[in-house]
Amino acid sequence: MKTLVIAPHPDDEVLGVGGTLLRRKAEGHSLGWLIVTSIDAANGWTDQQISRRKQEVQKISQLFSFTEVFELGIPTTQLDIVPMKELVGAIAAVFASFQPNEVFVPHWGDVHSDHQAVFRAVASSSKWFRSPSVNRILAYEIPSETDFGLNPNESFVPNVFIDISPYLSKKIEAMQIYESEHEKHPFPRSEDSIHALATVRGATSGFQFAEAFQLLRERM
Amino acid sequence: MKTLVIAPHPDDEVLGVGGTLLRRKAEGHSLGWLIVTSIDAANGWTDQQISRRKQEVQKISQLFSFTEVFELGIPTTQLDIVPMKELVGAIAAVFASFQPNEVFVPHWGDVHSDHQAVFRAVASSSKWFRSPSVNRILAYEIPSETDFGLNPNESFVPNVFIDISPYLSKKIEAMQIYESEHEKHPFPRSEDSIHALATVRGATSGFQFAEAFQLLRERM
Amino acid sequence: MKTLVIAPHPDDEVLGVGGTLLRRKAEGHSLGWLIVTSIDAANGWTDQQISRRKQEVQKISQLFSFTEVFELGIPTTQLDIVPMKELVGAIAAVFASFQPNEVFVPHWGDVHSDHQAVFRAVASSSKWFRSPSVNRILAYEIPSETDFGLNPNESFVPNVFIDISPYLSKKIEAMQIYESEHEKHPFPRSEDSIHALATVRGATSGFQFAEAFQLLRERM
Amino acid sequence: MKTLVIAPHPDDEVLGVGGTLLRRKAEGHSLGWLIVTSIDAANGWTDQQISRRKQEVQKISQLFSFTEVFELGIPTTQLDIVPMKELVGAIAAVFASFQPNEVFVPHWGDVHSDHQAVFRAVASSSKWFRSPSVNRILAYEIPSETDFGLNPNESFVPNVFIDISPYLSKKIEAMQIYESEHEKHPFPRSEDSIHALATVRGATSGFQFAEAFQLLRERM
Amino acid sequence: MKTLVIAPHPDDEVLGVGGTLLRRKAEGHSLGWLIVTSIDAANGWTDQQISRRKQEVQKISQLFSFTEVFELGIPTTQLDIVPMKELVGAIAAVFASFQPNEVFVPHWGDVHSDHQAVFRAVASSSKWFRSPSVNRILAYEIPSETDFGLNPNESFVPNVFIDISPYLSKKIEAMQIYESEHEKHPFPRSEDSIHALATVRGATSGFQFAEAFQLLRERM
Amino acid sequence: MKTLVIAPHPDDEVLGVGGTLLRRKAEGHSLGWLIVTSIDAANGWTDQQISRRKQEVQKISQLFSFTEVFELGIPTTQLDIVPMKELVGAIAAVFASFQPNEVFVPHWGDVHSDHQAVFRAVASSSKWFRSPSVNRILAYEIPSETDFGLNPNESFVPNVFIDISPYLSKKIEAMQIYESEHEKHPFPRSEDSIHALATVRGATSGFQFAEAFQLLRERM
Repeated sequence: MKTLVIAPHPDDEVLGVGGTLLRRKAEGHSLGWLIVTSIDAANGWTDQQISRRKQEVQKISQLFSFTEVFELGIPTTQLDIVPMKELVGAIAAVFASFQPNEVFVPHWGDVHSDHQAVFRAVASSSKWFRSPSVNRILAYEIPSETDFGLNPNESFVPNVFIDISPYLSKKIEAMQIYESEHEKHPFPRSEDSIHALATVRGATSGFQFAEAFQLLRERM
Repeated sequence: MKTLVIAPHPDDEVLGVGGTLLRRKAEGHSLGWLIVTSIDAANGWTDQQISRRKQEVQKISQLFSFTEVFELGIPTTQLDIVPMKELVGAIAAVFASFQPNEVFVPHWGDVHSDHQAVFRAVASSSKWFRSPSVNRILAYEIPSETDFGLNPNESFVPNVFIDISPYLSKKIEAMQIYESEHEKHPFPRSEDSIHALATVRGATSGFQFAEAFQLLRERM
Repeated sequence: MKTLVIAPHPDDEVLGVGGTLLRRKAEGHSLGWLIVTSIDAANGWTDQQISRRKQEVQKISQLFSFTEVFELGIPTTQLDIVPMKELVGAIAAVFASFQPNEVFVPHWGDVHSDHQAVFRAVASSSKWFRSPSVNRILAYEIPSETDFGLNPNESFVPNVFIDISPYLSKKIEAMQIYESEHEKHPFPRSEDSIHALATVRGATSGFQFAEAFQLLRERM
Repeated sequence: MKTLVIAPHPDDEVLGVGGTLLRRKAEGHSLGWLIVTSIDAANGWTDQQISRRKQEVQKISQLFSFTEVFELGIPTTQLDIVPMKELVGAIAAVFASFQPNEVFVPHWGDVHSDHQAVFRAVASSSKWFRSPSVNRILAYEIPSETDFGLNPNESFVPNVFIDISPYLSKKIEAMQIYESEHEKHPFPRSEDSIHALATVRGATSGFQFAEAFQLLRERM
Repeated sequence: MKTLVIAPHPDDEVLGVGGTLLRRKAEGHSLGWLIVTSIDAANGWTDQQISRRKQEVQKISQLFSFTEVFELGIPTTQLDIVPMKELVGAIAAVFASFQPNEVFVPHWGDVHSDHQAVFRAVASSSKWFRSPSVNRILAYEIPSETDFGLNPNESFVPNVFIDISPYLSKKIEAMQIYESEHEKHPFPRSEDSIHALATVRGATSGFQFAEAFQLLRERM
Repeated sequence: MKTLVIAPHPDDEVLGVGGTLLRRKAEGHSLGWLIVTSIDAANGWTDQQISRRKQEVQKISQLFSFTEVFELGIPTTQLDIVPMKELVGAIAAVFASFQPNEVFVPHWGDVHSDHQAVFRAVASSSKWFRSPSVNRILAYEIPSETDFGLNPNESFVPNVFIDISPYLSKKIEAMQIYESEHEKHPFPRSEDSIHALATVRGATSGFQFAEAFQLLRERM
């Protein structure tokens, strides 16, 4: 079995699916990581930022033992102006290459326009006759994205809860690789917040710690 | 693995889940059938009707090789006036006895008030700390119930498609056991309609024939 | 200003609104508590249970300094068979007596049929020309009720976040008065779960700890 | 063509569909009026109230020239405890007798439990193989019912606007027959409010005055 | 009466509205066809593809006896980067020229971004004071578009069913004009799938074969 | 306290929030006005139009005594092609400068793509750790925008009603400053329509005249 996580930006894969990825690995799945955006000098990022990002991606790749890492290299925060056709084609090409069975995608109600664009592109690129390997698609939740939307009709309504009790500490460790992202609670991506969210999702589902997802489509 | 189908009335299990039950059987699952309502003389049913119903239940039990059949015996078309507490308790007792992992339930938007009551009762009776065996709940669709609702906010939105290609003919054969129910198309439970619905669900999911469900909760 | 919390069962007021009630008190509001159901010998409760419930209500009343406590005394878990007319009349009478401005009610998507009935009754009893004092109605969330619904269209979508940072420890202390209700995590009403939920709601809203609500109607 | 309006209580037909009924009459439709509830001495109504109600129904019948008036005679405000089976049967019998093509029903989100029960019963009683004459079902809106719901997921979303410019004054005249119901604005059923709602619905649809409906099902 | 079908790409008009168009023709309506996108050499299409497309459009025009065919000529799969202002203006111009009364549009939940853009543009271009002829707008369903969306809040909820029993065979014949599009079931646009969908929609509405639509706005 | 209204185009602030702004002023709030778009010669507007627009903005500023007026100067009807990143940054800069507590925004379901873009940008720019002053966000309704949407899932569902009885006449007077916008009823922005909408919203909430809003987020 092969699991692919689609991350608009590095760190989405840890925040949304980190525990589940570690569990899938332990269950024997091959893991793939599709990073949609990148940062570059042309868009005003410093060499130091670019190089740190590269190191973060490398460390995360090792920690999760990703079989393959795909980088589309589209400038970050600009997916809303990239033609949908290109994004669909690029994601479909990754599906064709990696042949994932289970795919994790950002939620359509996320505040970031990059997340929204990725979600929309996956609907097109995952049609069964185009990408027949894909038989299970789930949306993950990202603190300060999925819970920050203003449109009540686009809220995250989880229907799948995955026990990550043995993996939470390593998920939090993974988040610490992203130096720039960690601040103290109530900053939504703090260690406390991640721990609390896993606890709440666990209380709903009967596990010590859980990650929650919204199943979008399964074919079996 | 154990699969339980909750049928407000006999024939719901065939119409909604017939192909999947046959597949689950082939995959080695134990199957349970919970029939919520019954017909009796006190409510104006003839001896002939009651006896035919008994035979139908028996034939269906054999055809699907149900490990256990549970009958709550509540008078049909009267679930809306049965105290919810009783219905919840009765269903929870079946969960405790059969210990199902996968449960199929009617959809909340079904027109029949019996279906609606059963759906509501399952939400209570399936809480993880009350019925820990239950880790996957799906709503099925019933022609002339699920597609006949007038409230657009309660429509069936399938997210799970199960390949029943090898089992459709036996599903239709099972429906023929319910003599009173089969009429010609466009009657919604005709052989043509059942065949067409399986074809449409298959086209959406890449199978010759499929049954569609709405996943309500999964914990793994 | 007067704040009324409507609790189908004692403990809902703490779980859903405990921190906010303490804050409202500190802000100078008068607090009212409407307990809709009760337990009695006729429905099979022991004298010990009844007497303990009485003591719990008394202790909670003192802890929150409720100006008034209203008890409708309808047998618990039976609101679905109480005529809606009676429930509407009884709640409207409390509105007329206490004259609340802000009212907290259970969410329509709660699993318990008692919660659903109370929600529906409030819609009728709070019409402005019937209960003109009521100018703000909010639905609260209850672990293992609001997050346990199976109907995705009835999910809780919070739009009001109230900072309860100074009050969380006293809220948890209040929950400990309900001896029968506290178990360890992942039991959804454990101290850990309550703490985690307040942390998650805080991360979304920029407070150390928060309670979340869904505003249903405000007139100003 | 035959048009039937289903009114839980007398005056719903005027408030919700009054202008359209007058227009349908002018267009040559036969009009039917199904009054679901009644008031009687057993439920505490005075002879005077009962007799006035009778006169109101008579005057309204004349004003709209209803071909047939059906009264189910179920005590008002008690439809939530009437078995759904009875209500479905009674409404289906009226469909069988009057053979309506177009049916107007209350909205599911109305605050009054009588309205909700009627809506639910119509879904069952209007199935095409049970009531083949019915080929168009629309929900109407009632001031202080349809706009007073607290559940945002049950709001009225009109998709049909009918020009009632020539009929608004007669609709308001009809409302004056119901003496007990008319008070001054902002009372929601005042002449001013009715006039304003027709103006607003007209502005949305390009008519001087309009009534708005939510089409639920049409088969042609 | 004039009916206009808006097709993002040729074949949408047949798949979504083919039977109804033939029926409208038989009922005496004038039919218009608005094709939004085109293929050209600049975007990498071969002369052969372009010429075949031209022939297909011609054959379809004849088969349906369209009074007028409008082609906006925007490159296919690129509507998401066309300024909305342009698209709105172009569609409004067609409304002004053809003066349609009934308009069929793609559904907002279709997977293809071209379909989504067309839907959004119609909302603007169909305002009553801008395009007063338009008094009825319906969304149609397209296999592998309308049923392939991943966002459950954007699902197609049909409320209008049109009997196309006498026209299904000619609709299927029309589809065969589009050589490139027909493959065998379970390919979603196969003859079997089209036949099955018409059967399912018929079972819901009491006709041998039907097309289903979602009424968006009607003013009469 | 500081209140900011975000208007995609001048006149949205009057139509949607005019009465409330006057009331906020009377209550002692500072008022800010953020005008997102402008008209210029490069996009084909005449000098006369540009100069009249300038005068209208000035007169409105005086009438409402805005403390600050911000103009982003993005060409009107083109927000759908402006990179979301720019729009988010520009709005966040205004939040940083004016430090509003209460913010009024257009509704996501408005027909105009400019309104939709502004709504989406606010979700990003109003995150609490980015714009901590913002603690209350409400969507307003605009005749012929908010009520003209074709997607029923995006309808305006008001939950906050603000009494503007003393301010309606001045709101209408303010609208008359926008000469180009006023026509007679049923034109949706006529004096009659504005008066009628305020009456309808008042009837729902118990005031002579009211404005209605949908609360999106409040943190207190």
